[in-house]
Amino acid sequence: MTINLVFTVLLFISFQYCSCQTRSEVETVYNTVFTNYSTYFRPIWNQSNPLTVNISFYLIAVNSFDEVEGVISLPGMFGLSWMDERLSWNPASYGNVRYLTVPQTHIWLPYIYLTSPSKGYHHIGDDEYMVKIFPTGMIVWMTGGIIKSTCTPDTTYFPFDTQNCTLTVVVFGYSPDEVRLSATAKVDLQFYVTNAEWELVSSVGYDELTSGTLPMSFAKFDVVIKRRPAYFVISILLPIIFLVLLNPLVYFLPIDSGERMSFCLTVLLSFAVFMTLVDDVMPKSSEPSIAFVSYYLLGTIVLSAFSTIATVFILAAYHKPDDQKVPAFIQCLDLSKNDLHQFTKFEQITIEFTMDTYN
Amino acid sequence: MTINLVFTVLLFISFQYCSCQTRSEVETVYNTVFTNYSTYFRPIWNQSNPLTVNISFYLIAVNSFDEVEGVISLPGMFGLSWMDERLSWNPASYGNVRYLTVPQTHIWLPYIYLTSPSKGYHHIGDDEYMVKIFPTGMIVWMTGGIIKSTCTPDTTYFPFDTQNCTLTVVVFGYSPDEVRLSATAKVDLQFYVTNAEWELVSSVGYDELTSGTLPMSFAKFDVVIKRRPAYFVISILLPIIFLVLLNPLVYFLPIDSGERMSFCLTVLLSFAVFMTLVDDVMPKSSEPSIAFVSYYLLGTIVLSAFSTIATVFILAAYHKPDDQKVPAFIQCLDLSKNDLHQFTKFEQITIEFTMDTYN
Amino acid sequence: MTINLVFTVLLFISFQYCSCQTRSEVETVYNTVFTNYSTYFRPIWNQSNPLTVNISFYLIAVNSFDEVEGVISLPGMFGLSWMDERLSWNPASYGNVRYLTVPQTHIWLPYIYLTSPSKGYHHIGDDEYMVKIFPTGMIVWMTGGIIKSTCTPDTTYFPFDTQNCTLTVVVFGYSPDEVRLSATAKVDLQFYVTNAEWELVSSVGYDELTSGTLPMSFAKFDVVIKRRPAYFVISILLPIIFLVLLNPLVYFLPIDSGERMSFCLTVLLSFAVFMTLVDDVMPKSSEPSIAFVSYYLLGTIVLSAFSTIATVFILAAYHKPDDQKVPAFIQCLDLSKNDLHQFTKFEQITIEFTMDTYN
Amino acid sequence: MTINLVFTVLLFISFQYCSCQTRSEVETVYNTVFTNYSTYFRPIWNQSNPLTVNISFYLIAVNSFDEVEGVISLPGMFGLSWMDERLSWNPASYGNVRYLTVPQTHIWLPYIYLTSPSKGYHHIGDDEYMVKIFPTGMIVWMTGGIIKSTCTPDTTYFPFDTQNCTLTVVVFGYSPDEVRLSATAKVDLQFYVTNAEWELVSSVGYDELTSGTLPMSFAKFDVVIKRRPAYFVISILLPIIFLVLLNPLVYFLPIDSGERMSFCLTVLLSFAVFMTLVDDVMPKSSEPSIAFVSYYLLGTIVLSAFSTIATVFILAAYHKPDDQKVPAFIQCLDLSKNDLHQFTKFEQITIEFTMDTYN
Amino acid sequence: MTINLVFTVLLFISFQYCSCQTRSEVETVYNTVFTNYSTYFRPIWNQSNPLTVNISFYLIAVNSFDEVEGVISLPGMFGLSWMDERLSWNPASYGNVRYLTVPQTHIWLPYIYLTSPSKGYHHIGDDEYMVKIFPTGMIVWMTGGIIKSTCTPDTTYFPFDTQNCTLTVVVFGYSPDEVRLSATAKVDLQFYVTNAEWELVSSVGYDELTSGTLPMSFAKFDVVIKRRPAYFVISILLPIIFLVLLNPLVYFLPIDSGERMSFCLTVLLSFAVFMTLVDDVMPKSSEPSIAFVSYYLLGTIVLSAFSTIATVFILAAYHKPDDQKVPAFIQCLDLSKNDLHQFTKFEQITIEFTMDTYN
Repeated sequence: MTINLVFTVLLFISFQYCSCQTRSEVETVYNTVFTNYSTYFRPIWNQSNPLTVNISFYLIAVNSFDEVEGVISLPGMFGLSWMDERLSWNPASYGNVRYLTVPQTHIWLPYIYLTSPSKGYHHIGDDEYMVKIFPTGMIVWMTGGIIKSTCTPDTTYFPFDTQNCTLTVVVFGYSPDEVRLSATAKVDLQFYVTNAEWELVSSVGYDELTSGTLPMSFAKFDVVIKRRPAYFVISILLPIIFLVLLNPLVYFLPIDSGERMSFCLTVLLSFAVFMTLVDDVMPKSSEPSIAFVSYYLLGTIVLSAFSTIATVFILAAYHKPDDQKVPAFIQCLDLSKNDLHQFTKFEQITIEFTMDTYN
Repeated sequence: MTINLVFTVLLFISFQYCSCQTRSEVETVYNTVFTNYSTYFRPIWNQSNPLTVNISFYLIAVNSFDEVEGVISLPGMFGLSWMDERLSWNPASYGNVRYLTVPQTHIWLPYIYLTSPSKGYHHIGDDEYMVKIFPTGMIVWMTGGIIKSTCTPDTTYFPFDTQNCTLTVVVFGYSPDEVRLSATAKVDLQFYVTNAEWELVSSVGYDELTSGTLPMSFAKFDVVIKRRPAYFVISILLPIIFLVLLNPLVYFLPIDSGERMSFCLTVLLSFAVFMTLVDDVMPKSSEPSIAFVSYYLLGTIVLSAFSTIATVFILAAYHKPDDQKVPAFIQCLDLSKNDLHQFTKFEQITIEFTMDTYN
Repeated sequence: MTINLVFTVLLFISFQYCSCQTRSEVETVYNTVFTNYSTYFRPIWNQSNPLTVNISFYLIAVNSFDEVEGVISLPGMFGLSWMDERLSWNPASYGNVRYLTVPQTHIWLPYIYLTSPSKGYHHIGDDEYMVKIFPTGMIVWMTGGIIKSTCTPDTTYFPFDTQNCTLTVVVFGYSPDEVRLSATAKVDLQFYVTNAEWELVSSVGYDELTSGTLPMSFAKFDVVIKRRPAYFVISILLPIIFLVLLNPLVYFLPIDSGERMSFCLTVLLSFAVFMTLVDDVMPKSSEPSIAFVSYYLLGTIVLSAFSTIATVFILAAYHKPDDQKVPAFIQCLDLSKNDLHQFTKFEQITIEFTMDTYN
Repeated sequence: MTINLVFTVLLFISFQYCSCQTRSEVETVYNTVFTNYSTYFRPIWNQSNPLTVNISFYLIAVNSFDEVEGVISLPGMFGLSWMDERLSWNPASYGNVRYLTVPQTHIWLPYIYLTSPSKGYHHIGDDEYMVKIFPTGMIVWMTGGIIKSTCTPDTTYFPFDTQNCTLTVVVFGYSPDEVRLSATAKVDLQFYVTNAEWELVSSVGYDELTSGTLPMSFAKFDVVIKRRPAYFVISILLPIIFLVLLNPLVYFLPIDSGERMSFCLTVLLSFAVFMTLVDDVMPKSSEPSIAFVSYYLLGTIVLSAFSTIATVFILAAYHKPDDQKVPAFIQCLDLSKNDLHQFTKFEQITIEFTMDTYN
Repeated sequence: MTINLVFTVLLFISFQYCSCQTRSEVETVYNTVFTNYSTYFRPIWNQSNPLTVNISFYLIAVNSFDEVEGVISLPGMFGLSWMDERLSWNPASYGNVRYLTVPQTHIWLPYIYLTSPSKGYHHIGDDEYMVKIFPTGMIVWMTGGIIKSTCTPDTTYFPFDTQNCTLTVVVFGYSPDEVRLSATAKVDLQFYVTNAEWELVSSVGYDELTSGTLPMSFAKFDVVIKRRPAYFVISILLPIIFLVLLNPLVYFLPIDSGERMSFCLTVLLSFAVFMTLVDDVMPKSSEPSIAFVSYYLLGTIVLSAFSTIATVFILAAYHKPDDQKVPAFIQCLDLSKNDLHQFTKFEQITIEFTMDTYN
């Protein structure tokens, strides 16, 4: 039975014609059901059986995903519902009291914990929320907060990357023999607000029961987000690609112009500057793989260094006394003596390199 | 009935001629009304009806708006008032006691929550404030703090941008069948202190009732702020515009001077430096749209790269042996051979590009 | 009556010859005065009259002033004293017990709040301090902490700026009809430790009573601090001034040297680098006014850009075929052809510009 | 006896055929054993003997290792077990109640503290976990959190470094005569999630008993992690090595090209830029030793400075009037006049220098 | 009597042959001494006399010293001991119970405060530690944490600086007539772990009694630390010194080489880059004095600017038509026309300047 059903039931009841529910009747119900109530013990009568707790997730927003630290920040609420048979009453005998709203600290609660929090192992949510108790003993508890979970980033295809983060939730302190979580498959998105940097691709809940020396009952919620790449394309990718296009131009610069060397070095320095820019948004991790952008930048720096070396040798050959022989491999490096139609060949190689990196 | 009315009533009473209100009488009233009082139950007698809570917002300042994180920080107070019929007395019988001031934890309170906080779902305000109780059972409670809410920034027209942030407040834990918020339209600005970076354009309150599987009663307060652009114009916009004006000058530099190439590259590098400056104050988001400043900078970098490419070809043509033919499109690129009156044409194109970007 | 008077009285008493004050007598006094004591009610008998609370400020240090965020951090203590007639006894009848030292939570307290905190509206000080109670019912309570208040920075004359921050303190929850603050004019500096970056110019306390729909009783403490400029002069101002002096030198560089253009551009780039340095210590605000240093830097960048433009035209004119006419305004720009005595004229203009900016 | 044994026992029992354990029987056991229970006193009967507390460590992940601050962040749980003879019962007499699950605050606990925390001396874990009590009086308590411990980094071989961090845990407040820790040798890794930047090399637990004026009983857990170097090799090491290879090329640049000096200086400046990059990830400590990367960079800067100096003298010699004699040591510095085969010699020296630094 | 004596006594007793101390006897002692115990009153019988509290400091480590913020972070414990005559018993009558270990909140405590904390005025240590009570009524309480104190940095001789930080501790809320601190001279270093960046030079404790209107009893602990300079020498000082050595080389560059100007400007720009590096680790304070490194860098920038100016005039003179006269002071600036032996003179001046700055 899911939470949504609970609310449907709640709404159905609330449209009935009962206006006879006074505060004194509510107080009577409260005093009756809470007599001899102890919050220490699981609500189930046969303590050898596990209590099933239904859990569903209301995702409210994606606040941020920090690739460098590997932390996702998700405002969200968990809706939990279970049966506490001690807290049941007959509405007919108590002036048609349809439900009680009491502070959560008054009853036994299955506190849920994130298994991979970024800040510390504290139960999710504050201690100040309210729970709703229905005549059958059904408890509905909404708890939550800004859930900050570690999530290993995969920036291989940055800035076209998709991140898959799993929120694993557990009732810590109780074994699966005592409390068992049952997750709703559909993550509720009725309150979801879109994020300006990340697009929500999919979200799904499921539960898992592990065995071993320390068996656990997990509820898991997968949240898959996809980066909106426009900003990074405009401010990092495009400038780098234009810079790469400049690189082979050095071979067309006339040697007499005396600017070949500074051209090479300035382009090389610019790549180094862009490398630091890219590093700021990249995690320092080598797993699962390093971003193609990093390889691409390294490749362009190496290419740039080689064209600097080539330029030195061309200059050296050019200024050699005429009686010394210029090696053949240096001669063919010097494009400025050839015609301009070779230019397209070089550009083509560069563009192909760019294409290959991204495929 | 609004809060302001409450205070007017309060002031009216306080100017009456009663000096006979002793501490022992106040204690008697306190002990009388709080006998058998329970903070768990809604104060309304017919628990099937919703309790209406009036809410008004006192905006004290705009502390900051962080465009990169998308967080607005607003010191402010919420004034709430409602009827708790259990806490009423006849002033005539109790030595004209006009009101009680008690710690807020003594009574039932409709704790309010921000729906989009930047730190966590905790009720607004501390647990240490005082409430005022009037003989009719009217409660006046001021609560608040530095309200930090997420707010998606729209930096399209940066630094001439206007930000619209909505604070949505809800009484979490109670359905609209139980507690209903009624917001005052006018945000109270009597304590407002102006901010040095942002100008308050408008502020307005309204309430909203959503239906669906999980109905909610919201109070919303829109705060619209406008950036004071002078600082950014002086330290970012003007320097970039002067740099753009330098760009076309490269065509007037004589080829013999041997400084064309370094001119091009230095200007290109300068744009890259300014790009990093602008990036520091820009969110990394691609929604709702990327700032015009980013497009403008990308445009200037592309222009700059093209003039570098053009310069290479001009130099190559210039140093060509005389028997080779210089292509026509390169000839017309070389302005230094023409007269200076063509300069204005280029400047005009650049300025028009600048104008177009900002309109 | 001020706090200091209280302490003088206290010291006077403590030098008397009574050694007969035993712990059991102190316990008797405590048990007597706290019988039927309630911390909820204002200590004054006639609840229609306001209670006067004397407040004085002990400034301990200026920890920091963050110009960018606009936050001042002041370790300090507030000394409060008032009369609680319920807590009085006759020393003669109780073994000459001269005072009681009890935890602050045992008595009614006028909790004070900062109106412009940088972190949140919580009462000043922890809940763990002690209060001293004197036989007359006089209460002396020292509370405080590291007071972090927002304070709009005025960096117009940076680094020769003076900041004026006002700490406004209020007894939140009580109207001026209930509790009224009376501030000591002199801020106590006996524990003041000088700060390495800021010099305390003046500090003064006063109280203020506002009327309106929500009347308030404020105690205000003005703290005026002046920056010690030596560090910023050495690391920012002097290097910029030396760079400005280099600017007009470009006109003396011989055109044949082939280094005019790179001179211009390197100086321009250096100004951009220093602009980023200055920006780090400047608030992004445009109110009350933008720092002269920012205008000065913008001015030098503009000057530098113009000398770059002039250099381009001079070079273009210089390399023109002899049959074309060089415009007159370009001829007069080229100082390298004139004698060196014109140098002083340019330097003079630059220095005058510098002077004007700072006056 | 280890924790794992405890869980094995627990599991064994739970597969038995008893389904007769009701909530009322659990409540009876609880009420029986907790009668007259006091949490202040050590559970052992003979208070002159030490209580042995078994402790084992479940390492969940390595969140981060901050080399600059010297802080390791390890999510992990500690499993503690000990005998509290007051909390024992005969399952046969109490409806086969196999264990109790109670909040940890109900019983006496040996709170554990980290001796080198990065944030403050607070006991590990929150106050909200559950403990399991077995009929024999055996207590099993899982506590933990994100353990942030200082750990002196050894970056000598960066980025091929291995870090050895020791978590030292102590029951603060009790001497070894009162409580003694007994650590499990094997750190439990069944919940371990691999980190993208660090590889777990080994982890081991042991206990230690110190004597002296203040004897202590420590449980220690060594965690050895190894950096995955790929990212740093690609973004820092390889670019630096390519830059070093460029350095000796200056001697092949023809003197007439007029670009020797700018080549030298640009390479020198690039090293300075990379030095700042490396500094960002390096601790500022001089102990145990400074990273080879820093020495290597200093070496390359010195080499680069010397080749700049050499270039100046070569240029000075080259432009000398023919009647002055060029010193011999300058002549042999100028490789551009010799043939290209000397190039390999220089490259060899540079590569050997690189090799030597890393061995 | 010092704490160490207490522990010696404790150890002596614990080696005696009494094994007859049962938990029930400990409980009896506890119940006896805590009957009618009140934590509000000072434990001394004659309340006119001050209670002496012995205090000693166990320094555990130096975590960090932040020069920019002026905050030292010292993990450490304070050992306090005093007499509480109410908590005494005759061991012979109570089964030889040698001491009690109880939570600190059960007894009266002299809470200690740091007078210059960096975070807020809260008492040192948590509320969860244990105290030991001996039969004579002697109390031993260990409290502490990571003590973060403000400490004005003196970076005059950076990176060879020594910092002297004083931790001043006070029992806030009690006058010296009530509680008096007596500090142990020797800071206990048995748990001290060496820091990788700072070397502990000395540490000493003493107490101080101030008079005035608000008399205070302080315990002070001086901690003197010395920076390990190796890292800063390698990464900042040595590169700057090599750069300074390059500066005078400009006069040896042949004028024809066309690289004089760019040499000057690149060196000047490099100094600016290093200035920003040094600024990052320097406080922005002008008191007690500005670091010699800052003066040194300013000096080198000025020197560099002057050699740029000189170079401009030399170039101007060199390219002058032959009929104009070159001023004498410019002629003597041009070293490239003289022989190389003048070089040593310049280097000498530079090195002497370096020497002078550091003496």
